Amino acid sequence: MNVAVYPGSFDPITNGHLDIIDRISKLYENVIVLVSINSSKTPIFTADERKKMIELEVSKYNNVKVETFNGLLVDYIRNKDAVIVKGLRALSDFEIEFQMALANKKLYDNAETLFLMTNMQYAHISSSLVKEINRYGGDISSMVPKSIEESLKNKIGRSGYANGC
Amino acid sequence: MNVAVYPGSFDPITNGHLDIIDRISKLYENVIVLVSINSSKTPIFTADERKKMIELEVSKYNNVKVETFNGLLVDYIRNKDAVIVKGLRALSDFEIEFQMALANKKLYDNAETLFLMTNMQYAHISSSLVKEINRYGGDISSMVPKSIEESLKNKIGRSGYANGC
Amino acid sequence: MNVAVYPGSFDPITNGHLDIIDRISKLYENVIVLVSINSSKTPIFTADERKKMIELEVSKYNNVKVETFNGLLVDYIRNKDAVIVKGLRALSDFEIEFQMALANKKLYDNAETLFLMTNMQYAHISSSLVKEINRYGGDISSMVPKSIEESLKNKIGRSGYANGC
Amino acid sequence: MNVAVYPGSFDPITNGHLDIIDRISKLYENVIVLVSINSSKTPIFTADERKKMIELEVSKYNNVKVETFNGLLVDYIRNKDAVIVKGLRALSDFEIEFQMALANKKLYDNAETLFLMTNMQYAHISSSLVKEINRYGGDISSMVPKSIEESLKNKIGRSGYANGC
Amino acid sequence: MNVAVYPGSFDPITNGHLDIIDRISKLYENVIVLVSINSSKTPIFTADERKKMIELEVSKYNNVKVETFNGLLVDYIRNKDAVIVKGLRALSDFEIEFQMALANKKLYDNAETLFLMTNMQYAHISSSLVKEINRYGGDISSMVPKSIEESLKNKIGRSGYANGC
Amino acid sequence: MNVAVYPGSFDPITNGHLDIIDRISKLYENVIVLVSINSSKTPIFTADERKKMIELEVSKYNNVKVETFNGLLVDYIRNKDAVIVKGLRALSDFEIEFQMALANKKLYDNAETLFLMTNMQYAHISSSLVKEINRYGGDISSMVPKSIEESLKNKIGRSGYANGC
Repeated sequence: MNVAVYPGSFDPITNGHLDIIDRISKLYENVIVLVSINSSKTPIFTADERKKMIELEVSKYNNVKVETFNGLLVDYIRNKDAVIVKGLRALSDFEIEFQMALANKKLYDNAETLFLMTNMQYAHISSSLVKEINRYGGDISSMVPKSIEESLKNKIGRSGYANGC
Repeated sequence: MNVAVYPGSFDPITNGHLDIIDRISKLYENVIVLVSINSSKTPIFTADERKKMIELEVSKYNNVKVETFNGLLVDYIRNKDAVIVKGLRALSDFEIEFQMALANKKLYDNAETLFLMTNMQYAHISSSLVKEINRYGGDISSMVPKSIEESLKNKIGRSGYANGC
Repeated sequence: MNVAVYPGSFDPITNGHLDIIDRISKLYENVIVLVSINSSKTPIFTADERKKMIELEVSKYNNVKVETFNGLLVDYIRNKDAVIVKGLRALSDFEIEFQMALANKKLYDNAETLFLMTNMQYAHISSSLVKEINRYGGDISSMVPKSIEESLKNKIGRSGYANGC
Repeated sequence: MNVAVYPGSFDPITNGHLDIIDRISKLYENVIVLVSINSSKTPIFTADERKKMIELEVSKYNNVKVETFNGLLVDYIRNKDAVIVKGLRALSDFEIEFQMALANKKLYDNAETLFLMTNMQYAHISSSLVKEINRYGGDISSMVPKSIEESLKNKIGRSGYANGC
Repeated sequence: MNVAVYPGSFDPITNGHLDIIDRISKLYENVIVLVSINSSKTPIFTADERKKMIELEVSKYNNVKVETFNGLLVDYIRNKDAVIVKGLRALSDFEIEFQMALANKKLYDNAETLFLMTNMQYAHISSSLVKEINRYGGDISSMVPKSIEESLKNKIGRSGYANGC
Repeated sequence: MNVAVYPGSFDPITNGHLDIIDRISKLYENVIVLVSINSSKTPIFTADERKKMIELEVSKYNNVKVETFNGLLVDYIRNKDAVIVKGLRALSDFEIEFQMALANKKLYDNAETLFLMTNMQYAHISSSLVKEINRYGGDISSMVPKSIEESLKNKIGRSGYANGC
């Protein structure tokens, strides 16, 4: 099992996500960053936009690629004979990740989820916080790469989403 | 106080809920499964549908009946001279249940809530997870009774809710 | 740094909030209760209504005033050379407050957030619970001041928000 | 199952424990306060002293008695056909209680543990905190009954335990 | 990095530990179960006894071996170019594991700890609980392998540790 | 109330503690680092040694002094008309700090405890971890000041405490 799948919404990807990808790339021969096309949330960026934004940032790794997917994660990893790898931030993610890891194992007995603890310098960063701070014109340059910062500012300029702020 | 009220949304009822009902039925003379008509969430099944789905599953118990209710839980149990019984899953439910138990006791001093820990084999099951997995065509047969599985598939077929997945 | 900013939605203010304000007023020379005009939630009361409701309750303090604000909290406190003070209830608020305190310090290095533990007699009270109980006609007189109770009943009468309950 | 067993060290019993006993006495026909003779901790009071101290406080209830026990709790409740009832304080007790409830159910399938949330006015009280405060001469009169306060002062006077403080 | 180190006290090893070992053996080419010679706890079994007890249980795996170690874990994995793998049970282990993973990464930048969630059927099992139940003559046959059960009973018989119970 | 008391064992003081002191020194006119002479733990350094070690590190602040104290914290702050300030690390400290803040307020109504969140770069540091790592010869230079590192190595050399490692 030398394929690791790192699933998420990545709306947008942050420095915290990129740190996890960097660490996974050293632990597994092949890494797939899996952008979920989640039908119940309304993302700022389309799945394709998110895929392209991530690809730009991970182009330096030979063993990392990006895909989008709509469906059950266990079906995806069964086909790839892959493990799931996730980052855990302090407590906030723990409970839901715990339940999902158990449910995935129930759905597919070989589904294994391995967790990495988020580096402390990224513990305060989440995609939604980045969007919130950006919406009010705050400085997000320490939280996302330059290209993501520009995408966020463009997107909001284009959509007029937070013009009233 | 030999009446126990087990309140919830039950949208739909899961094997985890049914395990709690089974255990309560051995501890109290009369058990009322109370389906809340919660106006702020949009359930998949109407309160009446949920009531009927549960009744089918609990028909084997002589001391369990199902009712729907819209209002304050303390008003309901005051009339019945009943205790509230709830299931607790690991941590996820704890904080909100704690606050509600305290608030209910504030509203009605005799309101007592007793908690049972969920059996571990059901810890990964929640109504929303069941709906999520079902939406993507995953196998939920170990999480809900056969009749509920069919209701879920019918409902989604009828409403076309997740046809695009 | 003798200015303390106590930020929140206060939709509406509760006895728990007022207890925190009372305690802050004894610890700092000047206290600003900062009503956030949060664009992503739909409050029952407008920011101006909330400001007026709080002003009525804090008029007894010489060193407490109320303001509304839309933007980044760190920008606000930077201008005032103020600290942020927050109340913490058991666990439920901890994680998100932790992340926000860290993010604010990242955005502005002098941003310091000081936390007070909520008094236990107010631990079961939250603005949303008050609204929920009020919606079903429950007794909220021990949870909010008289004036807030009346505002809540008026508001709901006017908007017909929960008439169907 | 109308017998409830309330197990604990009770070294010494506090107002928080007594509040739980009061509430259990209204919910069950017979209540047994079970003083554990725990061999791994070194209590201040012997099991017999603790038993007598509790008996004095619960003499007003017709349906509450006190016993000491050394062994597996499940063996005790199996003989009595009883349920276990415990108090839960915020988070601190949750994890260990969760594990013990599951383990007891594994050892004896009919072992059911029901949990009551501690009233908030007693949330800050624990036997060890009471002993700590008493050791430094602090006022514990709001935390334990008068008789327990005297027992604690006598015990420490007799044993010279904290004379150096 | 195809060597995984699974460190612990294993005093004694339980079915929960063995489930983790089984899962790790499918994910990594080589697995080392590392018995810590922890100088601050007083174990029931010596490190060598624990090593032999585990070896008996893992002899069926070609890629699992057992070692004892006294020192800093990061020094051990640096020599082996290995990752650390740990099991997480609900919440109880999380905080301390989080701190240790961060500290290890501080001591050695390449130190990566990957976490697997404990299967729910083993969530109630810990080495200390097994010892506690065994001390009172309870049935531990569902919690540890047959050989460990016998070792525990022999050890206690030999040492007279719990004869007074 | 412009006096802040920062109490703790400080056995020894770490970079995490010093960061909290630095932040408190900017928020209050006078800061007292209060070294507790806790009779129930056996510290590596005597209270006087700990006091001197801290004094060396805080000599650069005009408004910080160090004292030792044995007794109830509320008695100490009552005399000084001071507030208590504490650092909180993620979750591990929360519950016990919550209980102590409530108990202190019960013992003395004006006792207010204000909490600062630990900076993430110090979240993995605790006095006991520092001692553990040092005992095995690990590098603690990023966790404590130079002078503390030397004191630790001297202390252990002198006492031979961990010579067998």
